[in-house]
Amino acid sequence: MSDALSRLKDAVGPKGFSEDPHTIAPLLEEWRGTYHGRTSLLVMPATTQEVSRVLAICNETGLGVVPQGGNTGLVGGQIPFDGEVLLSTRRMTRIRALDKEGAHVIAEAGSVLYNVQKAAEDADLLFPLSLASEGSCTIGGNLSTNAGGANVLRYGMARALVLGLEVVLADGRVLDLLRTLHKDNTGYDLKQLFIGAEGTLGVITAAALKLFPRPRQVTTALIPLADPDAAIALLAHLQDATGGLLTAFELIPRIGIDLVLKHIGGADPLRAPAPWYALVEGPPFEDALGDADAVIAQTEAQRVNLWRLRESLSEAQKLEGPSLKHDISVPLAAIPEFIREATAAVLAAVPQARPVTFGHVGDGNLHFNFQVPDTSRRDAVARIVHDTVYRFHGSMSAEHGIGVMKRDDLVRYKSETELAVMRMLKQALDPGNILNPGKVLP
Amino acid sequence: MSDALSRLKDAVGPKGFSEDPHTIAPLLEEWRGTYHGRTSLLVMPATTQEVSRVLAICNETGLGVVPQGGNTGLVGGQIPFDGEVLLSTRRMTRIRALDKEGAHVIAEAGSVLYNVQKAAEDADLLFPLSLASEGSCTIGGNLSTNAGGANVLRYGMARALVLGLEVVLADGRVLDLLRTLHKDNTGYDLKQLFIGAEGTLGVITAAALKLFPRPRQVTTALIPLADPDAAIALLAHLQDATGGLLTAFELIPRIGIDLVLKHIGGADPLRAPAPWYALVEGPPFEDALGDADAVIAQTEAQRVNLWRLRESLSEAQKLEGPSLKHDISVPLAAIPEFIREATAAVLAAVPQARPVTFGHVGDGNLHFNFQVPDTSRRDAVARIVHDTVYRFHGSMSAEHGIGVMKRDDLVRYKSETELAVMRMLKQALDPGNILNPGKVLP
Repeated sequence: MSDALSRLKDAVGPKGFSEDPHTIAPLLEEWRGTYHGRTSLLVMPATTQEVSRVLAICNETGLGVVPQGGNTGLVGGQIPFDGEVLLSTRRMTRIRALDKEGAHVIAEAGSVLYNVQKAAEDADLLFPLSLASEGSCTIGGNLSTNAGGANVLRYGMARALVLGLEVVLADGRVLDLLRTLHKDNTGYDLKQLFIGAEGTLGVITAAALKLFPRPRQVTTALIPLADPDAAIALLAHLQDATGGLLTAFELIPRIGIDLVLKHIGGADPLRAPAPWYALVEGPPFEDALGDADAVIAQTEAQRVNLWRLRESLSEAQKLEGPSLKHDISVPLAAIPEFIREATAAVLAAVPQARPVTFGHVGDGNLHFNFQVPDTSRRDAVARIVHDTVYRFHGSMSAEHGIGVMKRDDLVRYKSETELAVMRMLKQALDPGNILNPGKVLP
Repeated sequence: MSDALSRLKDAVGPKGFSEDPHTIAPLLEEWRGTYHGRTSLLVMPATTQEVSRVLAICNETGLGVVPQGGNTGLVGGQIPFDGEVLLSTRRMTRIRALDKEGAHVIAEAGSVLYNVQKAAEDADLLFPLSLASEGSCTIGGNLSTNAGGANVLRYGMARALVLGLEVVLADGRVLDLLRTLHKDNTGYDLKQLFIGAEGTLGVITAAALKLFPRPRQVTTALIPLADPDAAIALLAHLQDATGGLLTAFELIPRIGIDLVLKHIGGADPLRAPAPWYALVEGPPFEDALGDADAVIAQTEAQRVNLWRLRESLSEAQKLEGPSLKHDISVPLAAIPEFIREATAAVLAAVPQARPVTFGHVGDGNLHFNFQVPDTSRRDAVARIVHDTVYRFHGSMSAEHGIGVMKRDDLVRYKSETELAVMRMLKQALDPGNILNPGKVLP
């Protein structure tokens, strides 16, 4: 073990590792404090070759290794729970290329999402992936978790934005799939394996990502609604009016606005409170709103302000106190009925819970959250919510992934055959089980 | 063997098989006559359960099995070359569900693409996959080959249209991934494995497919161009003008128009001939065309007529005589230079060849074809074209797949590591090598 550790240190050089507990401590803590890990070595390779050397040594010596990007994951996937080597991509932040004519960018895994958005913007293009944590999350983590976010409605999940990948396999071999083609049917599309695999099948070191023309005219509106049924009807109406070109359609409950105003500050954007709101963005749709009492952003500052309401919800929930969170999706048409049934079921179990249901309703994805006095009923409530989700043919992890948090629930909600094929892939690609061991697979 | 065959016949019942050479013959012949196969048994299961039984028997007895949809593949993937059992999906044509509000359709593998398009249209929705062979190709084949076609520019390849899959594994286990969610990050996205795997990792029996709002206003124009450089500039200009919403941008050479008028009939849509044309479709872009001498379809009949020029190119090439075809892609910006270099290289080798280069240039995808006196130089010309493609960081199979035609070329153009991971997957999912043996993997 100590021999393996010294080989690892040699592999990444003096700037490429740390054993200092103070340096390492913040990387072992999930940001909400839900998960705490331990490790004796942090490696910070600067190049794909160094990642390759690290994995080869770990594979040879049977050391587990946990890859970490911006440490913004919500399911514990980035935390070394069992003393594994922590592999941070924080030194791999280069934008290797940006091709304006070909509309793509090649970014290293440790590139912060915001920096990739900015690089695209500087070339008058758009990289549409957008999350509340975009100031610190990284491309490697975004792809390893197949991140979602606010623009999935129009541009798809992170998976849909990938043209090519560079991946280091468990044994250190570099799999160069860093292509920039929009069409390439030469054999199995191997990059798909690693997207959303949470670092359990290989370590993503770089990606070629699609860029898009920047939308010329953007309308952003906050629209008061009586209930979630009205949200579904409005979504259908506005998609019809725009030819399916809305970029975002977010549901926000009144309590969400209240929590943001209380903890983050700002003024209520609408004169009268409403039970629910939709935050909608897309090509001009003002005409289709009729006489709805909506706030339409007239300036970029107003637009940013409306989005701040949405993006601050998680932070406001945290400041309000303990919460139970569920990142679920159900078929679109089932959303109102699901909210009614699942809310009632949770309140029956925890009467003091206050529902804070919001999210990317245009994708069928809700952050089905509750403020609670304490989190002692976490597992019981998750069981209630997820059982209801599966009765509605939904998913218990729409965008956050499995990590450790939902790993053992897979047995309850997936077929044996599906789990068997997942294990086949793990066995084939990481026979020594060194890559993020204990994550994803039950 | 004869015991295995009788078990297979029992498994599918009297309507589910044929040993009649006259019935089987057309299924053994690739439509251009390039490939001929042989088999002693055609099975036509009517249900997923019957497919499951067929594969279980084949796996147990070591019989190879070749899945086939509409037999429109161009690389021999659907042909049993070595006496394998031929599994036709022609009796699995049910549209199991169409959800208008949720905008998806669940279709069985043998559903003809046109029928799925029609079902969507009847619900005032759009299924955007569109190919010249849409009247006979099937959803199972479309997904197994990750089909491309005319609308990739806006809607992506077939892969991008899949919400869920039902797949039968080599040993007969049914892998039910038939979800209809837009976001689901619960473990590895297994459906990706089978899309584009050409039936070598499992047999797709049904798919949940995304539907879209029908575009409200469509402009279709045929625009004369001096050269491919002008096409690239026009594409950038029109994408900018429409906010990236063009649905199709097809390049057609003058000789293509000539061949269609000669063999298929019709009138020249433009007064004066031009060296090249772009067939462009999308939201209204007339204003952005300036004073270009373009034909803009004023009626649906005119629109169909313009598209007929493009869709008839393969048929016209066939009627003109022997041809050499290459389904390649290169990065968009490299297209003009690639066409110049690769055309010169082919003409140096086969001076009588006449270039007929057309295709989905908006996706970087060209059908880089030549009319030739005979096909004796097929392999040499393919080598010249593909070597040039890879110098330009392109792909030798943009949308048609690998099949047998390009199988052995993978060794030349893929890394050892990439081929090793492909083989790992094959070994893990089909250890007996019964699924479409001899296809894709070199």
